[in-house]
Amino acid sequence: MVLLRLRANHSGFDAERLERGFQALADGTRRAVIARLTKGEASVADLAAPFDIALPSFLQHVRVLEAAGLITTEKQVGVRMCRLEAQRLGELERWISGYQAAWRTRLDRLGDILGRKGDMQ
Amino acid sequence: MVLLRLRANHSGFDAERLERGFQALADGTRRAVIARLTKGEASVADLAAPFDIALPSFLQHVRVLEAAGLITTEKQVGVRMCRLEAQRLGELERWISGYQAAWRTRLDRLGDILGRKGDMQ
Repeated sequence: MVLLRLRANHSGFDAERLERGFQALADGTRRAVIARLTKGEASVADLAAPFDIALPSFLQHVRVLEAAGLITTEKQVGVRMCRLEAQRLGELERWISGYQAAWRTRLDRLGDILGRKGDMQ
Repeated sequence: MVLLRLRANHSGFDAERLERGFQALADGTRRAVIARLTKGEASVADLAAPFDIALPSFLQHVRVLEAAGLITTEKQVGVRMCRLEAQRLGELERWISGYQAAWRTRLDRLGDILGRKGDMQ
């Protein structure tokens, strides 16, 4: 089942994880939360402070990030702390960079072919 | 105006472009189209062929990718050709890798501090 799934998306990436991950990054508030968490753990209240958003709406963003595996949260002495899961961010980066690399390889090959044609003239 | 916008998202990235870009990548059909286009230009009909989707629905995906700037399309002799705009893909990669780098720097610093504490014992 897992094998079939890996084959189906041709790249070893989990389609649902990519979908949730990129969806999570498609929102400015969520991107700002990730940016903040690169500096270290923070409570939900601290993360919410810079935003003019009601706490229930902000919590929705936190839940989307958590469901995407980009952050984990943990209750500590009555405060919910959030931390970045940077390896999941790295997975999304690798998906993009793989295709960037494929594209550059193709351009290099085209360059080689054009270069050889130039030599023959 | 541009300066204010750059300051507002703290990183020189255009928020709307990030939003459209990541949103575009949050769908498996659209990711497959990007994967295919890394191998070279293709017509909309060729891109649609592997998918069991009605053409109007497939065209919606093409339009989302185009609005995100990830592909451009051009009518050539009655056929709409699509090409990848790899630099826009690169922009999304750089957004992620910037925060990945910030995170690693922080971990390295923590490692240094813990290392020094260890030396003092």
